[in-house]
Amino acid sequence: MIQAARSGKQNIVEGSKASGTSKEDLPMDLICPICLIGRISESKSKLSIRAIRILHSAMISFRIALAMLVVTAISSQADEGMWLFTNPPLKQLKERYQFEPTPQWLEHLQKASVRFNSGGSGSFVSANGLCITNHHVGADALQKASSEQRNYLKEGFYAKTNAEEIKCADLELNVLMSIEDVTAQVNAAVKTGMSPDAASKARENAMAQIEKESKDKTGLRSDVVTLYQGGVYHLYRYKRYDDVRIVFAPEQQMAFYGGDPDNFEYPRFDLDICIFRAYENGQPAKIEHYLKWNSIGPSDGELTFVSGSPGRTDRQLTVDELADRRDREVPTWLQMFNRREVLLHAWGQRSFENARRARDDFFGDQNNRKRYDGYIAALFDPEIWSAIEAREKKLRDAISRDPKLKSTIAAYDRIKKAQGELVRIAPRYDYLEQERPVSVGYRGPRAFYGTLFKYARLLTRAIDERVKPNGERIAAFRDSAKESLELELFSSEPVYDDYEILRLTDSLTDFAEKFGGNDPLLKQLLAGKSPHARAVELISGIKLKGVEFRKNLYAKNAAALEAAHDPMLDLARMIDAPAREERKAHEAQEEIKRQAYAEIAKARFAIEGTSNYPDATFTLRLSYGKVAGYEEDGKQIPPFTDFAGLYQRAAEHDNQPPFDLPQRWIKRKPQLNLATKFNFVSDADIIGGNSGSPVVNKANEFVGIIFDGNIQSLVLDCIFSDKQARAVSVDSAAISEALRKVYDAGTLADELEGKKQAP
Amino acid sequence: MIQAARSGKQNIVEGSKASGTSKEDLPMDLICPICLIGRISESKSKLSIRAIRILHSAMISFRIALAMLVVTAISSQADEGMWLFTNPPLKQLKERYQFEPTPQWLEHLQKASVRFNSGGSGSFVSANGLCITNHHVGADALQKASSEQRNYLKEGFYAKTNAEEIKCADLELNVLMSIEDVTAQVNAAVKTGMSPDAASKARENAMAQIEKESKDKTGLRSDVVTLYQGGVYHLYRYKRYDDVRIVFAPEQQMAFYGGDPDNFEYPRFDLDICIFRAYENGQPAKIEHYLKWNSIGPSDGELTFVSGSPGRTDRQLTVDELADRRDREVPTWLQMFNRREVLLHAWGQRSFENARRARDDFFGDQNNRKRYDGYIAALFDPEIWSAIEAREKKLRDAISRDPKLKSTIAAYDRIKKAQGELVRIAPRYDYLEQERPVSVGYRGPRAFYGTLFKYARLLTRAIDERVKPNGERIAAFRDSAKESLELELFSSEPVYDDYEILRLTDSLTDFAEKFGGNDPLLKQLLAGKSPHARAVELISGIKLKGVEFRKNLYAKNAAALEAAHDPMLDLARMIDAPAREERKAHEAQEEIKRQAYAEIAKARFAIEGTSNYPDATFTLRLSYGKVAGYEEDGKQIPPFTDFAGLYQRAAEHDNQPPFDLPQRWIKRKPQLNLATKFNFVSDADIIGGNSGSPVVNKANEFVGIIFDGNIQSLVLDCIFSDKQARAVSVDSAAISEALRKVYDAGTLADELEGKKQAP
Repeated sequence: MIQAARSGKQNIVEGSKASGTSKEDLPMDLICPICLIGRISESKSKLSIRAIRILHSAMISFRIALAMLVVTAISSQADEGMWLFTNPPLKQLKERYQFEPTPQWLEHLQKASVRFNSGGSGSFVSANGLCITNHHVGADALQKASSEQRNYLKEGFYAKTNAEEIKCADLELNVLMSIEDVTAQVNAAVKTGMSPDAASKARENAMAQIEKESKDKTGLRSDVVTLYQGGVYHLYRYKRYDDVRIVFAPEQQMAFYGGDPDNFEYPRFDLDICIFRAYENGQPAKIEHYLKWNSIGPSDGELTFVSGSPGRTDRQLTVDELADRRDREVPTWLQMFNRREVLLHAWGQRSFENARRARDDFFGDQNNRKRYDGYIAALFDPEIWSAIEAREKKLRDAISRDPKLKSTIAAYDRIKKAQGELVRIAPRYDYLEQERPVSVGYRGPRAFYGTLFKYARLLTRAIDERVKPNGERIAAFRDSAKESLELELFSSEPVYDDYEILRLTDSLTDFAEKFGGNDPLLKQLLAGKSPHARAVELISGIKLKGVEFRKNLYAKNAAALEAAHDPMLDLARMIDAPAREERKAHEAQEEIKRQAYAEIAKARFAIEGTSNYPDATFTLRLSYGKVAGYEEDGKQIPPFTDFAGLYQRAAEHDNQPPFDLPQRWIKRKPQLNLATKFNFVSDADIIGGNSGSPVVNKANEFVGIIFDGNIQSLVLDCIFSDKQARAVSVDSAAISEALRKVYDAGTLADELEGKKQAP
Repeated sequence: MIQAARSGKQNIVEGSKASGTSKEDLPMDLICPICLIGRISESKSKLSIRAIRILHSAMISFRIALAMLVVTAISSQADEGMWLFTNPPLKQLKERYQFEPTPQWLEHLQKASVRFNSGGSGSFVSANGLCITNHHVGADALQKASSEQRNYLKEGFYAKTNAEEIKCADLELNVLMSIEDVTAQVNAAVKTGMSPDAASKARENAMAQIEKESKDKTGLRSDVVTLYQGGVYHLYRYKRYDDVRIVFAPEQQMAFYGGDPDNFEYPRFDLDICIFRAYENGQPAKIEHYLKWNSIGPSDGELTFVSGSPGRTDRQLTVDELADRRDREVPTWLQMFNRREVLLHAWGQRSFENARRARDDFFGDQNNRKRYDGYIAALFDPEIWSAIEAREKKLRDAISRDPKLKSTIAAYDRIKKAQGELVRIAPRYDYLEQERPVSVGYRGPRAFYGTLFKYARLLTRAIDERVKPNGERIAAFRDSAKESLELELFSSEPVYDDYEILRLTDSLTDFAEKFGGNDPLLKQLLAGKSPHARAVELISGIKLKGVEFRKNLYAKNAAALEAAHDPMLDLARMIDAPAREERKAHEAQEEIKRQAYAEIAKARFAIEGTSNYPDATFTLRLSYGKVAGYEEDGKQIPPFTDFAGLYQRAAEHDNQPPFDLPQRWIKRKPQLNLATKFNFVSDADIIGGNSGSPVVNKANEFVGIIFDGNIQSLVLDCIFSDKQARAVSVDSAAISEALRKVYDAGTLADELEGKKQAP
C-alpha cells in the first residue's frame, strides 16, 4: 500500500497541516522509493536495454560514465512528474500524447479531487457527496467505527439508505478551491542581515498572518505551502468537510487480498476501495465538480491522469543527507516497524478481539516495513547509489561553472554540518517530541505510543500555545488549524485500556532500551515502577478517555489542567519542557538546512528554468501516464488482471489466508462476469499519499483508483529497464461489477453511474 | 520453550563443545531469566507476601532495606540449585524432604540422562535405546528429515517398526559416564608471573592435553569443564551416539499447542515430546541405565527430580556487566529476533512450502523474542534491579571486611574496563565472527546467516586449524571434537536455494545497515552488487551443497580449497583474516574477565564455603522440587491440567490457529479419558537447556518431561511472591494415553511401559 501514513489521524492531521503550511516543524522526509525508481526506470532514454546491460557488465571504471547516462535518462521527461495544477505539463502532454487539457478541464479535476486527512487521496463521484478512496485510507475510520460486536474492517459495510450511513469519528476532507502565489509577501518579511532564527520567525509570522487573513476573509482553511524548497510560496484555500459518513466498504480480506505477501506486488487482485458521503448541515453535500463514472475502465496504452496528494518526495536531497537516511534513519525506522509488527502480531494472536483492536495499526506497520525494506534495498544497490551521486555531481558542476551561482556550493557543507547535529540529537527528539514525519508511521513520540498520550499532549499544548501570538505558535495550534485540532482532540474513537497499556508498556520499554536503565528522565517517568506497572497505573487512573472531560478542560486553562490530576496529563506536563528543548534544537538545524536547500533550489532554477515540478508536499498534484504492462525476468506482465485470475490465485493456495476469499465471493462466483478487468498498471509518477487518487481519462471520467506501486518501485532492481515501475489501480469496471453482483449494492452503483437521481 | 538454543546444530555442537571445555572461545552468557527469578521467587523467605507488599508500597528510602531482604531470601536455599552429581544437595533433601538418594540412585539417573547436542536434554526410557526429549528439541532433526512431500514437523511421525525409523541428519547424543577432578593438573600449568595471554594459552594447552589423553585412553568424548568460574576443573567423559533415529513425533500443532500466545504461560496443554532410538553398529543400542516408566505421573506436592543440562547461568555477573546486558546486549538481540521473526513470517506467508522450510527457525526466533522480552522487562523493574545491586553489595562488603580478600575488589574494576572494551568491539565481532552464545539464537555470524556459509567457514577453518598443534586450535577444531565437527560438516540436512538467498540477503543488508553503505569491507563483500544480487550470485554458483564435495575437500588442503573456486568458500576466505582479528581482540578481553571472575569466585568460596552449586555450563545437573500450583492475581493456579481442559481451550477459540486441534485429536476425543493429567508445574530450578529433562520420582521412575517455564519466570513481576516461578512438564500419564488412544502407537507405549520385550 502506498498511503503516506497508515497512522492514526493524529499525525496526518498535523502532518498535513504541517505539509500544507511547510512550517518549521516539518522535518525533511525521504525520497520515496516509488518515485525515485519511477524517474529512473520510466525514463525514455534512447539506450536500449541491451545496450545498457552491456555497459552494466563492463568494468568498474565505466561506472561513473554509466551513472551519468542514467542521470541523463532521469532528466529526460518520460511520463514523469507530480505537477502543480497551476503549472501542468502542457508541453509534454502535447508532444507525447497530442492532448491539450483546457483550464476548465483542469479546474474540474482539481475540485473533484479530495484530500483525506487520515492520509490519502480521493474524489467526488456523485452530485450528492459520494467520495471514493482506498479501503486502506478509509480503514482508520472503519476501525474507529467498529466494536467487538460489529467489525466493519473484517466484515465490510454497506448502508442501503442514507440513514444507515455511519458518521466518522474524526475524518476531515479537504478540497482545494484556489491557489494564490504569495512568494513576494513571504519573502518581504525576511530582511537582509537577519539571523537564521530571526529570519525563520519573520517568515513564520508572515505565513501565519496570510493564513489568518485568508481564513477570516473566506472562511476557508488556508495553508501557505512551501514549494521548490522555499523558492515559491503558495496560499492554498480548502473547503473542509468534517461530517463524513461511511457508505460502503468491502471485507478487508478482499480490499487487501493476498495480504503482506502480495503487497507491493503485481499481478494483483484487490478491491481496495471505500466509499464515503460528505455532508453539510446534516444533508448530503451538493457537489458541483464530481467525476463522471466510466464503468468500462481504461484500455491498454490509454493515456490516463492521476490527481491526488502525494505525501513527500525529497528528490533533491544531498548525497550526504541521503547517506544518513540509508545508514541510520531508515534502519532505525525498520527496527521500529519490526518491533511493532511483532508486538501487535503476538498480541493479536491471543484472541480475535485483540486482533480486531490492533488491526489497522498492524497492517500499517507491516506496510511500512515492506515499503522501507524495499527502499533500503534500493539504496544499497551500488548502481542506484552511483546514479544518485552522479545526479548531484552534475548539478554541482553546473553550479560551479556559473560565476553567479558558485557561492551556492557552500550550502552543501552547511547541510552536512546541520545534518551531523541532527543525528546527534535525533534519538532524544524522536522519543520525546517527534510526531512526524507521518510517512514513516510515527503515531506520537516513540516513548509514548498510544491514543491517550496524544490527547494529553494536544490538550497541554493547545492551552499553552494559545496564549502566544498566532505566528509564534507551533503550526498545529495556530488559528488556521483550530477546527482540525478540535476534530482530533474530541474524537469519539474508542479507546481500549488493554491496547493502550500494551503500547505504552512497549514504548516505555523501548525508551529504556535506547537510553539505558539509569537514564534520569526514564527514572522520573517510571516513578519507581516497571514500564508495565507504570503503564497500568497511567491508564487505569485516567479520565482523558471521556470526550466531555477533554472538552471541559480545553475550555479552561493551565491551572485547571493541573488541578485535574489526571496521571497522563501530569506525565505530558512532566516531559513538556525537555520535549520542547528537543524541538528547539531540532528546528534550529532544520532551519539551517531549509535555507541551504532553498539556496540550492534557486541555483537549480537558474540552470533548469521553470520546466520542472516541485517535490511533493501532500498537496494536490497532477500526474499522467499510460496503461502499460512490463517485462519481468524475461516474462511479459500484462497490464490487466481479471476476476478469473482472482479465483485461480485462491485455488492455488487452497483458499488459505491471506489468499482466502470471503464467503460472499465464493457464493457469487457463478453470477460474476469473470472476464471483468480487476486491477491495472500504468506508468504514472505516484508515491505514498496518492492512495485513493482517481485515475481519469481524457474525457475526465473516473476509470480507476490508485492503490499501490509494484515491487519494482521499491527494490530498484530495474535501473536499466525503463519499463518496470508501475502504479497499481482498481479498475472502475471491477467496482461496478462487484457492487452489483457481489454486494447487492445496485442502488449505490446506480448513483455512481448516474443512473438515478440522488436520494 | 526453554531450550538453550533453537538454533541449527552448528552452534550448539560448537557451543556445547565450548561449554563442555570452557575454552576461551566461550563468551559469557546472560543470567537466565528463569533462574534469576527462580532464586528470588522460589525463595522460602520468612516474609509473608502481605508483609512484603507493605514494604513494597513504602517510600523509596526503604528500597535498599527491602532489597537486602530479598537478597537474604535469595540466599536461603529453597528448592534451589542446579547441583553437580558429584556434590548433590544431600543436606537439603534430607532436611526438607527426609530423602537420601544412594550413590547407586544417583549413578542410575546420571547414566539414564542424555544430552542432545541440538540443544536440550533427554533420557533413555527403554532397554533398547528409546530416548525421549521435547518436540522442540527434536524439531531440528524433524525439519532436516522433512521434504515438500513429507512434512514431519507438521504431520508428526510414527515408525511402527524399527525399519521405518528415520536416521537423523546430524544428531549427536552424549551420556555422561564419569567425572574426574583435574583442577590440580590444569592449575599446575599456569606459573606465577605469566602474562594473561600466556596463562590462558598454558591452561588451554593443559586442558587439550588432558582431553586428548583421556580420549586416546578411553575412546570416550572427553571435555574439561570449567566450574565455579575457574575455581574447579572437571574432566567429563561421554559416551557418544551418532546413529540416532526418529521413532515418534506428534504434530507440532499439538507439541506447541497455543503457539506463541501460550508459550511461557500456564495453564498449558502441550504434548511437547519426541522419541528417538539410539543405535550402535546398526542395531538398537543396549541400554543398561534407563528410566522405568511410571504411567500414572506425579501427585500434587510430590518431591520430584530433574536431571538435565541447563545451558548457562551467570548468576554471578557484576552489576556493571549486567547493566550492559540490559542496556545494550539484550536490546540488540531483540532487534535481531524481531527482524528475523518478521522476515521469516513474511516469507512463510507466501506459500505452504516456504512456511515449512522456515518453520523451525521461525519458532526459534519467536521463542527467543518472547524469552528476552520477558527478561528485559524484569531487568527494567526497579525492584529487581535493587535486589541485584544489593546482592553484589553484600558480597563486596564481605570481601572488603576480610583483610585476606579485600584486594579482590579490584577485580570488579578490571571486569568493568574489559567489558567497556568488549562493547567497543562488539558489533564487528558479532557480524563477522560470533557463532555463540547459542542461547541467544545465533546461527552463525550475523552478516552470513545460513547453512552454506556455515559449511564454508567450518571447512576453511578445519583445514587451517588442523595444521596447528592441538592445544592451540580453536576449541571446535581440536582432536577431541573431531567426530562432532565431521557429523556437522557432512550433514545431510536439505539446503534450499531460495531460503539461503533470503537469509543471506537479509544478513548482508543487516551488515550494511549496521556499518553503512560506505564500509570498505561491505563494498568488498558485495563486489559491486546489491545484497540480494550478491546473495543470488553466491548461492547459485555454489558447489558446497554436495556432501561428497565437502568430504572431498575436507580430505585435502588449503590449496585445494582455493582451487575449488566455490564462491562461498572464497567469501569465507575473504573475511577469515578480519574475523580472526575480531576473535583475537574479543578473547583478550574475555580472558581478563575470566581471570577477574575466577578471583571473585574464589573469594566467594572463602566466604560461603563449598555449600553452593556452580553456574550452569550445559553439563549434567540435578535439580529438585515439588509439584505445586501457585497464586496469580489472587487466583489459585492448580498444578495440573487435563485433556478436558485442552478441548475446552480449543472450543473457546473456535478451534482457530494457534488454538486449533489436529484432526486426529478431534476424531479420537470420545476414546480418550478426559480426566488424564496433561501438564504440571513444579518449583524445580531449571533454565534453557533443561528442555526435555526427565522428571523422576523418589523411585527414580519417569513421571514427566520438562518443556517450559511459566511467564513468572520471565517477567519477574512476582519478586514479592515466593510461589510463582514454575517449571512446566508433560505428565507421563498423558504420554501413555495419547500414544495408545490418539496415535495408535500401542507397541511403542508397551515398550516404554516395559510390557513387552524389545524388538
